[in-house]
Amino acid sequence: MELDRRTKGIPGLSDTFDSADIAGKGWNVLRQDMPLPLALLRETTLDGNAAWMRAFCENSGVSLAPHGKTTMCPQLFQRQIADGAWAITLSTAHQVQVARENGINRILVANQLVDPAFIDYVADQLATDAGFDFLCLVDSIAGVEILDARAKQRLGARRLGVLVEIGAAGGRTGVRSTQEAFAVARAVKASSVLELRGIEGFEGSVPGATSTNIGPVERFLDAIRESVLAADAEGLFTGDEIVLSAGGSSYFDLVIDRLAGIELSKPVRLVLRSGCYIAHDDILYTDHFAHIRKRSERASHTHGRLAPAIEVFAYVQSIPEAGLALLTAGKRDLSYDAHLPVPRKHFRPGRDTAPAELAAGYKIEALNDQHAYMRFPEGADLRIGDIIGLGISHPCTTFDKWDVLYGVDDDYNVVTAYKTFF
Amino acid sequence: MELDRRTKGIPGLSDTFDSADIAGKGWNVLRQDMPLPLALLRETTLDGNAAWMRAFCENSGVSLAPHGKTTMCPQLFQRQIADGAWAITLSTAHQVQVARENGINRILVANQLVDPAFIDYVADQLATDAGFDFLCLVDSIAGVEILDARAKQRLGARRLGVLVEIGAAGGRTGVRSTQEAFAVARAVKASSVLELRGIEGFEGSVPGATSTNIGPVERFLDAIRESVLAADAEGLFTGDEIVLSAGGSSYFDLVIDRLAGIELSKPVRLVLRSGCYIAHDDILYTDHFAHIRKRSERASHTHGRLAPAIEVFAYVQSIPEAGLALLTAGKRDLSYDAHLPVPRKHFRPGRDTAPAELAAGYKIEALNDQHAYMRFPEGADLRIGDIIGLGISHPCTTFDKWDVLYGVDDDYNVVTAYKTFF
Repeated sequence: MELDRRTKGIPGLSDTFDSADIAGKGWNVLRQDMPLPLALLRETTLDGNAAWMRAFCENSGVSLAPHGKTTMCPQLFQRQIADGAWAITLSTAHQVQVARENGINRILVANQLVDPAFIDYVADQLATDAGFDFLCLVDSIAGVEILDARAKQRLGARRLGVLVEIGAAGGRTGVRSTQEAFAVARAVKASSVLELRGIEGFEGSVPGATSTNIGPVERFLDAIRESVLAADAEGLFTGDEIVLSAGGSSYFDLVIDRLAGIELSKPVRLVLRSGCYIAHDDILYTDHFAHIRKRSERASHTHGRLAPAIEVFAYVQSIPEAGLALLTAGKRDLSYDAHLPVPRKHFRPGRDTAPAELAAGYKIEALNDQHAYMRFPEGADLRIGDIIGLGISHPCTTFDKWDVLYGVDDDYNVVTAYKTFF
Repeated sequence: MELDRRTKGIPGLSDTFDSADIAGKGWNVLRQDMPLPLALLRETTLDGNAAWMRAFCENSGVSLAPHGKTTMCPQLFQRQIADGAWAITLSTAHQVQVARENGINRILVANQLVDPAFIDYVADQLATDAGFDFLCLVDSIAGVEILDARAKQRLGARRLGVLVEIGAAGGRTGVRSTQEAFAVARAVKASSVLELRGIEGFEGSVPGATSTNIGPVERFLDAIRESVLAADAEGLFTGDEIVLSAGGSSYFDLVIDRLAGIELSKPVRLVLRSGCYIAHDDILYTDHFAHIRKRSERASHTHGRLAPAIEVFAYVQSIPEAGLALLTAGKRDLSYDAHLPVPRKHFRPGRDTAPAELAAGYKIEALNDQHAYMRFPEGADLRIGDIIGLGISHPCTTFDKWDVLYGVDDDYNVVTAYKTFF
């Protein structure tokens, strides 16, 4: 893929080049070879996160279908597959198209398909590629009918696999009772082109659930367990194995506690879907991960840990008042939905050889589209032209602000261009 | 520019094609030719907004340098220039690079430049293209020194034009007093490569200012007036005219009230910088515009009006409970920083020939990354598979979620692919 100076982060004096050749440019972030802001992925930490999640899933006997919507980076999808992921989870037609164009052969769409353009594409992919495996969700008889009617126009001899989605009252999608789950499952059974391959739920959006109040998550997972046992007893599942999937990035240990080891009439594949583990973050998932390690012996005993691999670098552009600095990054560059970013590192070009960790007292108090307002302690040694490294909260909403994120080694040499497709 | 199925909105069964040929595809949004979500720009409304702003600026005797960060769409930059814009305003190195690659020959960067890669690029562009005119801001002596030292390495015989930025206490960038403004202006005067071409301020981020409390904006504009009069009296400005620039999308009428007609030693060019007028929106700028029309006879007497040209279409994917629908669009598709989006239109494929305006009682109450939670009135005729048209608040943060927005005619035929560069 070609990169040129129209891509955020590429120097204006650079010629067009192939993204695979970026390491050969010899660019170093601290040497100021590239304009800021830059979104960086620290390769060593990325490797550690991948290794931790792989080991944790292996130790737990579960499969991983990481949610690709987090990064929308096919290079990372391919890496996750190489690391042993069973599938890539996705949300939208566009996301599936991106994954398929990049050779992803098993996709779990964690949504019900109602869009004819989406159904046409999936059915066509299934009909024309015997090596492609696809699963999506259904949560209503109407949804089953829409999918059945449209998919059969293109599917040929293949069947389209679905999971009944269990939801929680007041929550997002998914049936609200075992009875409803059964009605939907029977509608699937009656279809000539769909097949029921399992049950799914997303515990991350259950109302009232937090790291310090996991009761709603546990009750929700128990409801999934109850539904899958009942549906299996009625012989509603087809195929060689039953897929049981839950698990975002916040409570995946609880999914294993409550759903692993369930005994059904066929082998069970328990599939976690965490998407955030690969980049992790500085606030939201750092907090969730601390709770996961506290709750789960398996997590705390897995070698290594998840750590924030993503950071955004920006300049101090102005210090118009004592204690207030404006940085050259804003809503266009940084997540602001869960928390505002947090200043972590300070580097003064021409003086420092490596970024220093910032002491307490530095705080982002607001973002505009292209500016961050940073408060800093009285007497701090801060000048315009200094570089600040920001940690973020919720990687999904930082990735989506970058056409390319830059992989760096421990010395901030740029070694990889991670192209995204949002 | 080639578009393919990796671009959000392009059907999975489409071959790669040139974006300029999109009208020839014969795609219609209501005929479901493209997967949703889609971000749409209604061409008729876009034309009306462009005409209104052009007429308003002409009637007011002011120049327009629309802030390009709003859309980051070179096709719209070029259109704005063709419509008479004096320059394009931008924020970052990346944005300037995108504009220059697309033939924009006058750029106002509404920031102080401290990034060596940014300064190198601008200096190189000035040195190599005599037809390129560039202005940026300075708000400190340190900033002047950084810019002077770096720019002189590449500028050749050109000078780099700057405006001293006036700020407000507790606000964003900019000097906090006329004294400081003078000190910065004198530092510019002492530079052998910079030249002081005027004064700038951004009234949109003055603390305490709202549409119903415009006092802080007026006082801020008066401070700009005072600074420019004093600097002119001291002969600090160089060049044939003095540039005086303020005006975002919220209070541009007040800028004219307070700053138009100022008499200085040279001709004065008053430059507004509104970026949002071209797409406008359904909430934030609709409200600001109502206040502008109430305050300004010139605005209310200008033929036509600004109207929301941007909307996002999504499917009803699930109705898991009475009164709750989940739509196939979320934080990846819609602004959520100023207000949540607002459901405006309803279309049932196979039944309707045009979208109907939604009655009251439909409300987006939350967004996840890829879902919107829509509450709707009891007894409403809503089904999964229906299409909802959403209005947004703050166009900048919807544009940045789309690699391509689709221009549609009044019948929702797709006539233009608006490629963005974020």
